[in-house]
Amino acid sequence: MQGTPRTVFFLSDFGVEDAYVGIVKAVMEGIAPGVRIVDLAHALPPQDLRRAAYQLYEAVPYLPQGAVVLAVVDPGVGSSRRGLVVVGERLVYVAPDNGLLTLAWLRDPPRRAYALENPAYRLPGVSATFHGRDVFGPAAAHLARGVPPEAFGAEVPVAALQRLPVRLGRGPGGEVLTFDRFGNAITTIQAPLPPGVRAVEVAGRPVPLARYYAEVAPGAPLALVGSSGLVEVSVREGSAREALGLREGDPVRLVGL
Amino acid sequence: MQGTPRTVFFLSDFGVEDAYVGIVKAVMEGIAPGVRIVDLAHALPPQDLRRAAYQLYEAVPYLPQGAVVLAVVDPGVGSSRRGLVVVGERLVYVAPDNGLLTLAWLRDPPRRAYALENPAYRLPGVSATFHGRDVFGPAAAHLARGVPPEAFGAEVPVAALQRLPVRLGRGPGGEVLTFDRFGNAITTIQAPLPPGVRAVEVAGRPVPLARYYAEVAPGAPLALVGSSGLVEVSVREGSAREALGLREGDPVRLVGL
Amino acid sequence: MQGTPRTVFFLSDFGVEDAYVGIVKAVMEGIAPGVRIVDLAHALPPQDLRRAAYQLYEAVPYLPQGAVVLAVVDPGVGSSRRGLVVVGERLVYVAPDNGLLTLAWLRDPPRRAYALENPAYRLPGVSATFHGRDVFGPAAAHLARGVPPEAFGAEVPVAALQRLPVRLGRGPGGEVLTFDRFGNAITTIQAPLPPGVRAVEVAGRPVPLARYYAEVAPGAPLALVGSSGLVEVSVREGSAREALGLREGDPVRLVGL
Repeated sequence: MQGTPRTVFFLSDFGVEDAYVGIVKAVMEGIAPGVRIVDLAHALPPQDLRRAAYQLYEAVPYLPQGAVVLAVVDPGVGSSRRGLVVVGERLVYVAPDNGLLTLAWLRDPPRRAYALENPAYRLPGVSATFHGRDVFGPAAAHLARGVPPEAFGAEVPVAALQRLPVRLGRGPGGEVLTFDRFGNAITTIQAPLPPGVRAVEVAGRPVPLARYYAEVAPGAPLALVGSSGLVEVSVREGSAREALGLREGDPVRLVGL
Repeated sequence: MQGTPRTVFFLSDFGVEDAYVGIVKAVMEGIAPGVRIVDLAHALPPQDLRRAAYQLYEAVPYLPQGAVVLAVVDPGVGSSRRGLVVVGERLVYVAPDNGLLTLAWLRDPPRRAYALENPAYRLPGVSATFHGRDVFGPAAAHLARGVPPEAFGAEVPVAALQRLPVRLGRGPGGEVLTFDRFGNAITTIQAPLPPGVRAVEVAGRPVPLARYYAEVAPGAPLALVGSSGLVEVSVREGSAREALGLREGDPVRLVGL
Repeated sequence: MQGTPRTVFFLSDFGVEDAYVGIVKAVMEGIAPGVRIVDLAHALPPQDLRRAAYQLYEAVPYLPQGAVVLAVVDPGVGSSRRGLVVVGERLVYVAPDNGLLTLAWLRDPPRRAYALENPAYRLPGVSATFHGRDVFGPAAAHLARGVPPEAFGAEVPVAALQRLPVRLGRGPGGEVLTFDRFGNAITTIQAPLPPGVRAVEVAGRPVPLARYYAEVAPGAPLALVGSSGLVEVSVREGSAREALGLREGDPVRLVGL
């Protein structure tokens, strides 16, 4: 409860056209004066759990030991879904219990979890629609100033936490996990790839594996290992999502093994 | 003039595609090294005073006592409109005198106001088009480091401050105040609603009052009390603005009393 | 290597829909705990060096002495282009060697430059596509905590640094440098203008010089000196880019001399 508050890394789908993100930060500043808050992303597609889960997967290895991760993408706000504090090996998370942390946990396994129940650590008069402000933000700020995770509520068995029905793996089979803003398709296949892989088959067509965009002509498709370590399917100077008509969950397969 | 600078909460319509917001922050950092600046919102619709006033209304109750609010939505930049420091009960504001703070003052009444006149607290060579950088940002930074409000210029009677021609109230009548980015219509009617209210009439049609979106079918209209405490008219998984053809100022009325 | 880290001002084209900016900040926080990072802009048009160079030109005079500028717009990522630390008169820059700093240097001339080579100051396992995270962000953080510029690698002669093929000047001739988000055309002509200038000729037509938008009718073109000190061609309540069919590099000329 003393010393410098821990840094909070904040991801949401609140957008940047409204003051929602700023209001959550104001609440945290009121609870933990001087707390450092770093934005991970807020202009994510609304209620897109897979996209947000992927962003957390990409970010987690780069977050400093002991940081608090506040993640609010919450299609079930106002329903009975639980709020959580999850203690990972390196980081501590505050999020709804809806699978949002599924991919983050692949890189920082959950050790203990607690329900967000203690009224002392939420705002009085919780609204039906803005738990980021009333529940999750306050919890993150209290954690940042040193409140122990077990003070928030009853322990939840790690095995009981909600997870998205998606698996990452070395292939050869996988699926389209999500898309980025350029329309690149992020797949569930992790690098390093087995030797001999020459292409990725997606939506029934083979796409050559490359190291750089410049290896193919403008408008041509290619596959490469992205900065998150996952195989991505792209179209040079274009959108793979549109050009190839891809959708989340489309099957993907390494070929030329 | 000593100790930790006060936190500045910053709202503007400068957008996020240009460096304007960053430049204002750089100016503040130069004046008050180490000052904490929290973004409330910058991607608001340009020059939309009602939308910005609503965002401030929503944010004000959550800003910590003593904070500085820097609000710059300024259609009249370069004209003779005044710049202001306004001392509220809990917060201190820097803004153009154009009604932008009208709704914030409902939750934090203005006590004293001063014109931004003192050249010692603006940049040399004020431009015709960027008073956020040259006048308002510097004033906020000087306030944050401890310059007293009365040092900025002549006192302006609170009764003489510009206000938007809009009133909030308990109904039964009201109007569409503004819209959010999803096309939800924020009305001027404040919760709690009188017992017996069953619907809201807007643009000549009754819309049922609900607590959650899920109470109506996708595409159907509903009214609910939003996170700011105002009645909102929405369309589930759609835009009430477009689906119902709503405009700012359209009359709204509680029915079923 | 001690005391408060220097402030980093961060500009990129990483966008705000993904966590890229947040990840770079997390890396910097890990290297220089407590470092202050101020966003200049991240939603710039991807890979648009002229637009980014203009934003830096506008920002540089307002950045505090000794600050670190981290600028990453990097169409050549993964190729052999060099990374740089550049020591200016007032500021220190980290950027790819691709001309991005050309216009900043007009206001803060480069004195010394070093290649980003030292593996001690980058992340292990540099990716092919995200040097902001792996190379440039770490370099900025190490500079902020006090690592001297010459520790990063071999000196690069200032005369050998890449520059964009664009010149600013007092006219009478110039060109369209870039556009802002409203479609205003920023030209290469610097204020103050010679006495007697009455108009600017662009794309073969004369546009009257004005001080304020309100001097012309809605929809009419005008030229004025913008907040960066450059002549801009605008259309009141419209887009000069679209209304006048302008493109980058179009010739511009002061007339009525």
